[in-house]
Amino acid sequence: MTILDGKKIAADVLAECQEEIEALKAKGVIPGLAVVLIGEDPASQVYVNSKVRKCGEMGIYSRKIELPVDATQEEVLQVVRDLNAEEAIHGILVQSPPPPQIDEHDIINLIDPRKDVDGFHPVNVGKLVMEDPTGFVPCTPSGCVRLLRESGIETSGANVVVIGRSLIVGKPLALLLMAKGVNATVTVAHSRTKDLAALCRQADIIVAAIGKTGFVTADFVKEGAVVIDVGINRVEDATKKRGFRLVGDVAYDEVAPKCHAITPVPGGVGPMTIALLICNTVKAAGLRVQENS
Amino acid sequence: MTILDGKKIAADVLAECQEEIEALKAKGVIPGLAVVLIGEDPASQVYVNSKVRKCGEMGIYSRKIELPVDATQEEVLQVVRDLNAEEAIHGILVQSPPPPQIDEHDIINLIDPRKDVDGFHPVNVGKLVMEDPTGFVPCTPSGCVRLLRESGIETSGANVVVIGRSLIVGKPLALLLMAKGVNATVTVAHSRTKDLAALCRQADIIVAAIGKTGFVTADFVKEGAVVIDVGINRVEDATKKRGFRLVGDVAYDEVAPKCHAITPVPGGVGPMTIALLICNTVKAAGLRVQENS
Repeated sequence: MTILDGKKIAADVLAECQEEIEALKAKGVIPGLAVVLIGEDPASQVYVNSKVRKCGEMGIYSRKIELPVDATQEEVLQVVRDLNAEEAIHGILVQSPPPPQIDEHDIINLIDPRKDVDGFHPVNVGKLVMEDPTGFVPCTPSGCVRLLRESGIETSGANVVVIGRSLIVGKPLALLLMAKGVNATVTVAHSRTKDLAALCRQADIIVAAIGKTGFVTADFVKEGAVVIDVGINRVEDATKKRGFRLVGDVAYDEVAPKCHAITPVPGGVGPMTIALLICNTVKAAGLRVQENS
Repeated sequence: MTILDGKKIAADVLAECQEEIEALKAKGVIPGLAVVLIGEDPASQVYVNSKVRKCGEMGIYSRKIELPVDATQEEVLQVVRDLNAEEAIHGILVQSPPPPQIDEHDIINLIDPRKDVDGFHPVNVGKLVMEDPTGFVPCTPSGCVRLLRESGIETSGANVVVIGRSLIVGKPLALLLMAKGVNATVTVAHSRTKDLAALCRQADIIVAAIGKTGFVTADFVKEGAVVIDVGINRVEDATKKRGFRLVGDVAYDEVAPKCHAITPVPGGVGPMTIALLICNTVKAAGLRVQENS
């Protein structure tokens, strides 16, 4: 059984990015990412801070824009308008989920698709379906596919079950996995799926993206399967200084022994997501340079 | 075994549309569809003529724009630009496939998404993924889903195998079937899928969209399954005046006896596609009226 080391693979991906960043700097361009955080959700703060920190490590310009929890829709829209217009910013992301008074959909639709490094704008989602490489692909799904590829796991002809049909992970991941060149046979399962465990037992690769602690148990997994755990759930843990620990959607201890390969949580898909965000930001800067030349 | 009568169901769908058309006319608006045909492909001519004829029957304004087989990219783009600007036109479609010198992708990207009644513009594809009801859904996939619904076939929790991963049918259909409210467990199969027959035998509903005559044989189908045949293939037939007959992707004679329900070719999905094109055109006109009011 192999534990897929997301940290290590993310570092390799970032090393490639670093070369592109240097090439851009040689042309006088520093890629810039703006991260908008509305409110004080602790998990969102952690994510935003990791993204900003990684930008710093990579020599990317980043800006964290914090809005109060009672920010109005118009205030957020105005922030996005300003960032769309700003030369130094190549990528914009609005950390999800925003507070309930904010219509996230309208905010995303306003982001310039060329700066939509989260890949959630309809134009980029459309390009993903159409396999148009000029678009931006959401970071978590593309991180999963990259993780499989860099680990030498064959996807062509593989039966993959993706558990979860969210816009952020399940659907884009299914589209990526079925695309030409990846060529998996993909089934998307969800809360209405009948006999999910039996379905999963037929899978060569299982991707769990439902946000339920320990949802995927040993009886979901055939011997020799590959399991990718996208879940990041907080579980109370008095032994930890911060009072909780992070666990995935997979019951790791009972599942891992059956697997050919499995991702841990933390240290699996998480680092890949941040690495792909950096890649998307560098891509956005590179496309702008091309456009202007 | 039930033969799903696409003609009958399409007529019911169109009767609903007719009411909307009358309501628009009462407001002084006649929905208008422009169909652009490049070259003289005989099958394309048949499709375009059916669409134009159906518009006439429904009291919709239509315009057929025929360009020579050696039309340039710029000529086609100019036609689209003019149609985008024209008040009387609510829907634009460019019949596929265009001749090889034409970049279809660029043409579709230029169509105003609000007039993209084929649903192929990235914005509309993105809205489909995001389950945003303001977009336009491609006509054949939405025709398939409508056919299932009007026939009382349960999709929630059903295992559906879609054979084919095209942008026009396979992928959008998979997205529609897995969406909330439809709730199927969808697998997309394609040329790289292993043991396709065994996979299909597990399906409650099989949708064949590969464009290969008689590809789905009896051993693909479990007793009591529902089979939807999207294929429209021409087979030489000297007994027909036009020299060919139309057949689907399903070996109908051997498959039908095993089915709970099956669509014929012709008379199954085909009429639904045209009906949904009319619906999309009426929807485009209705949205414009709302926007202007």
